[in-house]
Amino acid sequence: MHKPVIAITMGDPTGIGPEIIAKALCDEKIHGICRPIVIGDEDSLVRAIAATAQPLTIVRLEGREIPETFNGNTCYLRNVGQLASGDRIIGHPTAATGNAMFNYINEAVRMTLFGDAEAIVTAPINKEAMHKGGHPYPGHTEALAELTGAGNVVMMLAGDKLRVTLVTIHEPLSKVPSLLTYERILKTIQITHNDLHRYFIRNPRIAVASLNPHCGEGGLFGAEEEVVIIPAIKAAQSAGIDVVGPLSADTLFHFAVEGRYDVVVAMYHDQGLIPLKLLHFADGVNITLGLPIIRTSVDHGTAYELAGTGTASAESLKAAIIMAVEMALVKERDE
Amino acid sequence: MHKPVIAITMGDPTGIGPEIIAKALCDEKIHGICRPIVIGDEDSLVRAIAATAQPLTIVRLEGREIPETFNGNTCYLRNVGQLASGDRIIGHPTAATGNAMFNYINEAVRMTLFGDAEAIVTAPINKEAMHKGGHPYPGHTEALAELTGAGNVVMMLAGDKLRVTLVTIHEPLSKVPSLLTYERILKTIQITHNDLHRYFIRNPRIAVASLNPHCGEGGLFGAEEEVVIIPAIKAAQSAGIDVVGPLSADTLFHFAVEGRYDVVVAMYHDQGLIPLKLLHFADGVNITLGLPIIRTSVDHGTAYELAGTGTASAESLKAAIIMAVEMALVKERDE
Repeated sequence: MHKPVIAITMGDPTGIGPEIIAKALCDEKIHGICRPIVIGDEDSLVRAIAATAQPLTIVRLEGREIPETFNGNTCYLRNVGQLASGDRIIGHPTAATGNAMFNYINEAVRMTLFGDAEAIVTAPINKEAMHKGGHPYPGHTEALAELTGAGNVVMMLAGDKLRVTLVTIHEPLSKVPSLLTYERILKTIQITHNDLHRYFIRNPRIAVASLNPHCGEGGLFGAEEEVVIIPAIKAAQSAGIDVVGPLSADTLFHFAVEGRYDVVVAMYHDQGLIPLKLLHFADGVNITLGLPIIRTSVDHGTAYELAGTGTASAESLKAAIIMAVEMALVKERDE
Repeated sequence: MHKPVIAITMGDPTGIGPEIIAKALCDEKIHGICRPIVIGDEDSLVRAIAATAQPLTIVRLEGREIPETFNGNTCYLRNVGQLASGDRIIGHPTAATGNAMFNYINEAVRMTLFGDAEAIVTAPINKEAMHKGGHPYPGHTEALAELTGAGNVVMMLAGDKLRVTLVTIHEPLSKVPSLLTYERILKTIQITHNDLHRYFIRNPRIAVASLNPHCGEGGLFGAEEEVVIIPAIKAAQSAGIDVVGPLSADTLFHFAVEGRYDVVVAMYHDQGLIPLKLLHFADGVNITLGLPIIRTSVDHGTAYELAGTGTASAESLKAAIIMAVEMALVKERDE
């Protein structure tokens, strides 16, 4: 079987990223199905290998070299820059660390657009540090959209039991209602449909959540359902998409988990992530839809309280790598 | 063992209320532990008994009479008013039906304040019909607060795995941020503490959810955490309450279910009800905290699509009755 090349970005070197990467690479479920290449800082990786006591040897890659043989004892690395020791203190990322996090993402995008890697998998970043480092993106998703020139992207979180996509992501809750436009909701439904169809399910059944409690209760608890959500759903239906809603958000996720829908389009971050993380705390995967490349990610943060201890769970990262491989194989088959 | 008198309101006679009441009354787990009295419409109850094929005989109570013997074959009823046949068409409540729903609640409150019943359990109402009937309350909770003269009440939803209380309830999402005042959050924490301590757990551990994603991410995604939520939590801590937060809402519920907290204070309806209903779709109980009386309720709606078929699940109603009985016994023990 073809083993896709997966570019794995280290994320914040002062968080758990390097350690969960070291753990994941040594798992036969991972190195048995893909050729992983880590993009990050060598010294941070050395420390992580020691902290997790993994039997890994680092091999630095030069230029566009891709090795042919992969196994569970070798960690191929593209060393992007070199952090000073003061910039890799556990739990204390600096502006330089933040700049490095961005550079790892940038390099992974470059590799993938050039065809040197078939997918990107990202470890968690620290957004404040990345901002201090001169890259004021709200998160990975927005950075990836700009770096790849994608017009519209959608964040999907997925596990075995539930998939959700988000109309708005990293926004103050007070801004959410005004950000919910007809165009934005329709575009989210379309991208959700297109990429689920492309990579996962031939005929995805989509449900759209309401913004307001009890679906607005006929206008008593808010009008966004009538004004923007319903028109967007009708337009998507007219375009042949299998989509229903808006449905009351408090019961919708129960029906989705029962199998009635393949994905739920949520209006804001916590509406989608509360149920997702309740069901998939350790093994949820974040997938960016609408990009010209394949990108998956862990769905957790830098977890400084665990960093350096070697105890952080690599389950979400492993699930993200496995999903990226599956998507890459679908893409290869169809091309 | 003492069997408390429980006043059960029928809710919307054109929904599933009468049927789930008929089913619950015949369950030995219910009539074995309490003396249930139904407040509602006799003809609707006759229809429900037929639809559910329960072996129940209706006995009308007059005045303040409370029978001494209860069993699974007798349904004691306080018939409040009498609906015309046009006002009890399944799925089509009229203004008269809406007025009747309110009158059932009013009668149950009166019975409980007079000491004729020890707790109220309510079946689902239709809010639009209740408004048309001249009672413009956003929901049961607000009506009960006014009828009992309670200054501040808090809605709690509870199951075996999770309890949540809400700072705001039936509000458009766009209004939630401006409704989150220091006073309101602090009062919710205090009432949550007081009534959990009173009825459930000697030293309840309370966690407060953030409003914004990632807890506001240090101010990047909203300032309400810093401005109102943290000061309210600090004030509650100073008063000796075991409360922590604000904690990122997307992961908090996982930790609560793991057992780290006894209750989560949520900022808005769907934030609390999405995880609650995902875990307790059929057996969640709604409890009004801060009232001078005990009141529990089903946590679902009128379910018109099931009404008349006899198939609706009575699990939530049974759980609500059992919880009301447990609370009444605690109250009796302590007085």
